Amino acid sequence: MDFPILIINFKTYREATGRRAIELAKAAERVARELGVAIAVAPSHLELAQVAQSVDLPVYAQGASVENFGAYTSHIPLEAVKEVGAGGVILNHSEAPLALNQLAKLLEKAHSLNLDTVVCAPDPQTSLAAAALAPRAVAVEPPELIGTGRAVSKYKPEAIVKTVELVKSYFPHVAVITGAGIESGDDVEAAIKLGTRGVLVASAVAKSRDPYGKILELAKPIAAGPP
Amino acid sequence: MDFPILIINFKTYREATGRRAIELAKAAERVARELGVAIAVAPSHLELAQVAQSVDLPVYAQGASVENFGAYTSHIPLEAVKEVGAGGVILNHSEAPLALNQLAKLLEKAHSLNLDTVVCAPDPQTSLAAAALAPRAVAVEPPELIGTGRAVSKYKPEAIVKTVELVKSYFPHVAVITGAGIESGDDVEAAIKLGTRGVLVASAVAKSRDPYGKILELAKPIAAGPP
Amino acid sequence: MDFPILIINFKTYREATGRRAIELAKAAERVARELGVAIAVAPSHLELAQVAQSVDLPVYAQGASVENFGAYTSHIPLEAVKEVGAGGVILNHSEAPLALNQLAKLLEKAHSLNLDTVVCAPDPQTSLAAAALAPRAVAVEPPELIGTGRAVSKYKPEAIVKTVELVKSYFPHVAVITGAGIESGDDVEAAIKLGTRGVLVASAVAKSRDPYGKILELAKPIAAGPP
Amino acid sequence: MDFPILIINFKTYREATGRRAIELAKAAERVARELGVAIAVAPSHLELAQVAQSVDLPVYAQGASVENFGAYTSHIPLEAVKEVGAGGVILNHSEAPLALNQLAKLLEKAHSLNLDTVVCAPDPQTSLAAAALAPRAVAVEPPELIGTGRAVSKYKPEAIVKTVELVKSYFPHVAVITGAGIESGDDVEAAIKLGTRGVLVASAVAKSRDPYGKILELAKPIAAGPP
Repeated sequence: MDFPILIINFKTYREATGRRAIELAKAAERVARELGVAIAVAPSHLELAQVAQSVDLPVYAQGASVENFGAYTSHIPLEAVKEVGAGGVILNHSEAPLALNQLAKLLEKAHSLNLDTVVCAPDPQTSLAAAALAPRAVAVEPPELIGTGRAVSKYKPEAIVKTVELVKSYFPHVAVITGAGIESGDDVEAAIKLGTRGVLVASAVAKSRDPYGKILELAKPIAAGPP
Repeated sequence: MDFPILIINFKTYREATGRRAIELAKAAERVARELGVAIAVAPSHLELAQVAQSVDLPVYAQGASVENFGAYTSHIPLEAVKEVGAGGVILNHSEAPLALNQLAKLLEKAHSLNLDTVVCAPDPQTSLAAAALAPRAVAVEPPELIGTGRAVSKYKPEAIVKTVELVKSYFPHVAVITGAGIESGDDVEAAIKLGTRGVLVASAVAKSRDPYGKILELAKPIAAGPP
Repeated sequence: MDFPILIINFKTYREATGRRAIELAKAAERVARELGVAIAVAPSHLELAQVAQSVDLPVYAQGASVENFGAYTSHIPLEAVKEVGAGGVILNHSEAPLALNQLAKLLEKAHSLNLDTVVCAPDPQTSLAAAALAPRAVAVEPPELIGTGRAVSKYKPEAIVKTVELVKSYFPHVAVITGAGIESGDDVEAAIKLGTRGVLVASAVAKSRDPYGKILELAKPIAAGPP
Repeated sequence: MDFPILIINFKTYREATGRRAIELAKAAERVARELGVAIAVAPSHLELAQVAQSVDLPVYAQGASVENFGAYTSHIPLEAVKEVGAGGVILNHSEAPLALNQLAKLLEKAHSLNLDTVVCAPDPQTSLAAAALAPRAVAVEPPELIGTGRAVSKYKPEAIVKTVELVKSYFPHVAVITGAGIESGDDVEAAIKLGTRGVLVASAVAKSRDPYGKILELAKPIAAGPP
């Protein structure tokens, strides 16, 4: 996992379903190449395999189940995530919260499979607990700002500052990124200035009429940022 | 949804992951053509799209989430299931149990999307409740027999008989199928004789060294059975 | 379980916590005696035992867990509900939804323990499924009206009418009651006229400055109603 | 919360239900007085109020819900736990696991209510994450030993040693206690020697024919241990 990074979560937006998931990922790939910046995409489970096979980018699952291969109807084993070509997983997104004990097991397994890991958390204290489990990155995302267009880096900068401070002092090997409400290049720039090593975006890209242009806008401050 | 039917649940078996999911589905397709019998396959979420695009069979999702398209990281909207090419969904499998209220909403939505629906239930009384929600089929599956190789049709025939009797008398438009422990053509034949209109199998096919041969064996009594 | 019935759900209202739970239950007991009407109270788990020991009324738990006595930290076994003196249980309230399979097991066990059972459901179709599990009563409660003061009997009478019709035609031994938004005697009267055999109320009583007066108002149309 | 401490979890054992919960708590109270040792009891939700009113010991709830007072049928608000007389809460027991985000919220609220907090975790890494949320104590409990009579302090001492080491170096204000399989005074002594500041026991006491004698046996090494 390279930093600074722009991670694009496709969620289950209609605009990022089916064929459009691949188009979106290809737009991200183009920006990544043009700017030489790290971009990862997180399509829904239904498009994970096809996106992973279509682009040369880190592709992350939006979540996973703790169980291994076997008799687990409707689950998403990390082993299968890996096998279909994904390189990482986002865990504990506020829309898919996980039990502490399961999160710990998933991280341990993900690392043994050599998968990148990003754990979301709603606030600084919870981010510290997530960091204690040694993921590659923690993404602090105040749930009340998600999808609002009011960027965490502008409307709640203190949450970012406090998270960076806490995680750096206890678990400096864990990168802090942020998300929630990020809509513009300015929002990304603000997040980088506050000490994060990347951002997690969703609706701004998935719902854009010009995904390539929007990704370009969001990725520029990443490309310009400190390593 | 045509009856009698053989439904093959791929679960998250390693043997039914990635490329092997497509091979398994193609073996099922070959048998369906050769015998002129109704066969549906239920790959994992990660392979659903690719299997749906690869075979001319009903392809069912192993489950789904109640939410629509939108900001629902890691969920599986029925609308997306439909869009990637699936034709139905299995709900309330004992390995993915659902809240009653969510099951009711999912069924209503699935039907408005014109998706086939199979609801699993562990016993006759719960099967009756599931049938009250008007799915296309109810699959009675005693959980204690799932994956054991001890077929419900031989080790717990009374559960099938009672379910057929209850569902027929209250909700005759709902088909009763069965599963759990089904390993051989004899097991299928026994299930059909007890009044079911199909069977749901998993490990017997997914773990077979000769999936085509095994599907053929299981499908023959279906082909020979009453409509 | 006697019908028609007024069931008072204390939820976890501050006004129905600790000592106040007992006072509320005693007010209900007084009305039950004065009017000769069936009233049941459902205090929170924390007050269940003390309320059951303090009044001569049916006392219902607000929910329960499927597990028996044993190593189940923080669970609520039905056997314990019974032992501390409760006479019944409300299941699948929209604020405590249950998996279909667990609901079925809980009802079977509750009846073997001779406990009264009321299953909540949000709409007619789900009420029919609940009725298929043979509880003593089904309470149809559109969740969007709960706690609003807009009574289901006035704002969504068609949900009640349809539920009564469905349940009566398939499972006539199951009583239909209703709830959500019930605030006044008029609301109760309307519910009875629509064919229900009782009502489930919460905030109207728990948050009243004069609980005795409010219970009296709500119970009068019950006392006057058809058996 | 005083250390070292013996915490007795009543779980939902039949032997600790109803009146017997009070007798068990009184036996604990007697030992606490005789030995001058810190003992806390954790009765089930159904007995919490009566136990809290019957003994002069810290009484802990076995769990709680994140919601406040209000329209939350079947939930257990911390505010109500406090109001009925409890002085603390056990969270994330392996039999009642919590989402990370909810655990964080519960701890924050518990501390604002001045309630003691014990968070259970299955292994050292998860214990460290729990400690990052600043509870008063973390209880490391390998789930595979719970209820087995094979004491963690003898069969998995390395889990205790590693947890003590990790938590001490990162979050020294959080006490480490342990549990799982603790049956005898020797098991407790071993746990104290490994650096824990208390133990969490359940079946050994609840299922004993002589609870007073068993509590005395378990409490003696606590009384003799380092502060």
